[in-house]
Amino acid sequence: MVKRKPGRKRPSHPSSPALRPPARPARHARDSRPDSAPTAPPSNVLFGWHAVGAALANPRRSVRDLMCLEGQSAELGDRLAALPPARRSTLPAPRVVEKADLDSLLGVDAVHQGVAAMVDPLAEISLEQAIAEVGDRAVMVVLDQVTDPHNIGAVMRSAAAFGAEAVILQDRHSPQAGATVAKAASGALDVLPLVRVTNLARALRTLQEAGFWCIGLAEEGARPLHQIDMQDRTALVFGAEGDGLRRLTRETCDLLAHLPTRPPIRSLNVSGAAAIALHQAALARLAPVD
Amino acid sequence: MVKRKPGRKRPSHPSSPALRPPARPARHARDSRPDSAPTAPPSNVLFGWHAVGAALANPRRSVRDLMCLEGQSAELGDRLAALPPARRSTLPAPRVVEKADLDSLLGVDAVHQGVAAMVDPLAEISLEQAIAEVGDRAVMVVLDQVTDPHNIGAVMRSAAAFGAEAVILQDRHSPQAGATVAKAASGALDVLPLVRVTNLARALRTLQEAGFWCIGLAEEGARPLHQIDMQDRTALVFGAEGDGLRRLTRETCDLLAHLPTRPPIRSLNVSGAAAIALHQAALARLAPVD
Repeated sequence: MVKRKPGRKRPSHPSSPALRPPARPARHARDSRPDSAPTAPPSNVLFGWHAVGAALANPRRSVRDLMCLEGQSAELGDRLAALPPARRSTLPAPRVVEKADLDSLLGVDAVHQGVAAMVDPLAEISLEQAIAEVGDRAVMVVLDQVTDPHNIGAVMRSAAAFGAEAVILQDRHSPQAGATVAKAASGALDVLPLVRVTNLARALRTLQEAGFWCIGLAEEGARPLHQIDMQDRTALVFGAEGDGLRRLTRETCDLLAHLPTRPPIRSLNVSGAAAIALHQAALARLAPVD
Repeated sequence: MVKRKPGRKRPSHPSSPALRPPARPARHARDSRPDSAPTAPPSNVLFGWHAVGAALANPRRSVRDLMCLEGQSAELGDRLAALPPARRSTLPAPRVVEKADLDSLLGVDAVHQGVAAMVDPLAEISLEQAIAEVGDRAVMVVLDQVTDPHNIGAVMRSAAAFGAEAVILQDRHSPQAGATVAKAASGALDVLPLVRVTNLARALRTLQEAGFWCIGLAEEGARPLHQIDMQDRTALVFGAEGDGLRRLTRETCDLLAHLPTRPPIRSLNVSGAAAIALHQAALARLAPVD
């Protein structure tokens, strides 16, 4: 078991509040990038039980309109009834619509399961805000130049499933949280924030100052991931398909770890690597603290 | 650690050679299903270093034509020189082509990295053939009604990276190994076979007779996956997005296992779940045998 460097200062809370920038304004514009399919639903519409259910449960999400087919009306009613009254009071009454209405709103290829919601985009939060809300064993995911919206969505979904607190990526290189990200995330955008930063190396240093151990996944990593201590605050850092982690990202990480893959195919898709690392971090959280 | 049922007969080799069906003829027709993008490359063309490199190294793959840009000519020559002479003698000499040639062959969106190959489809092999070739600690992946070609390709890639021996799926519900599967597989189709069976429950029983412990991943699984003994022959069984494993598949598995996910998002994408389970099986193979 690899232990942390003994001399490393690991405060439980961010030590430099003066560094905190003002919160970024929410993006209200529609995703300006075209999604992959010509029939992609608009980015302000969520559909399917995972995504709609997560949005209904998320107090930070404004829901403008809630639609279902006749056959889903009872289940939707049950789900609304199960919400805390304070949240329920902020939601519109569901409207029963025809299948043709959903098809024309979402495109015929959308697997909507008979339920959809028109929503406002979530207000973005800063890295410092995200850090301020988490506990001593929090896990964060950091993506270095990952731009494929399916991959970002899939990472969001695994991060939510394994209880991570945020997914962090660099503003410049990343797509907005449009419909493709939302669909692949399968509701995860309402479970944990997608945090945009302007400089990834600086974000890693901010995480380190807040006591996060930054572990980069890289083929050339010295140690296998499963031997690394991930019990305390942990940031898992993944690079883009093909190029991997940039040099400055690698150098800023506390440690580089590899997975026990074998030739000729040594590298995994980023969402597969993230699922594995998030599972390992979740296992460390099932174990008793040292 | 969950141990196997002690009374279970676990022969090292298939005990019923009489059950072996004749090998299925290779499919030479082009993939008849349209791939997702209108510009999807034809399924008999591989491109990018991962896919082309794996095809060159695979003695079961016939390569008809080998193309590269001027700038990739030296690397391609080095890769060819590194192959065993017996394999190299079966390959065509590489042709230097123009970027416009690759663009018109592959579509402008293909990330071809300056290298492409025209190939014959791989001959399909039967489950019994696949079993006959593997060792006492082999890992197989079984997909129950997974039809998305991106997911199948991503599972193939993780299976290759972690040294699994085959990916098995049911003929009727699965797409052919077209260009979308090949691209997501990133060369894995040349590393391990995609085995098609007509009846998945029967395939599980064939695996069990050959000593494979069949572990189904399911939210309702009694035990967490990381506590399950996966040292001997292991088949990892995954269900389709949404529906999970079919009843008969669940009932035929020796054991159902879950991953330590948390609400509200309990289920992972099938390729993420497969990456995690394959990693766990690989870790069991790093450990000494009991």
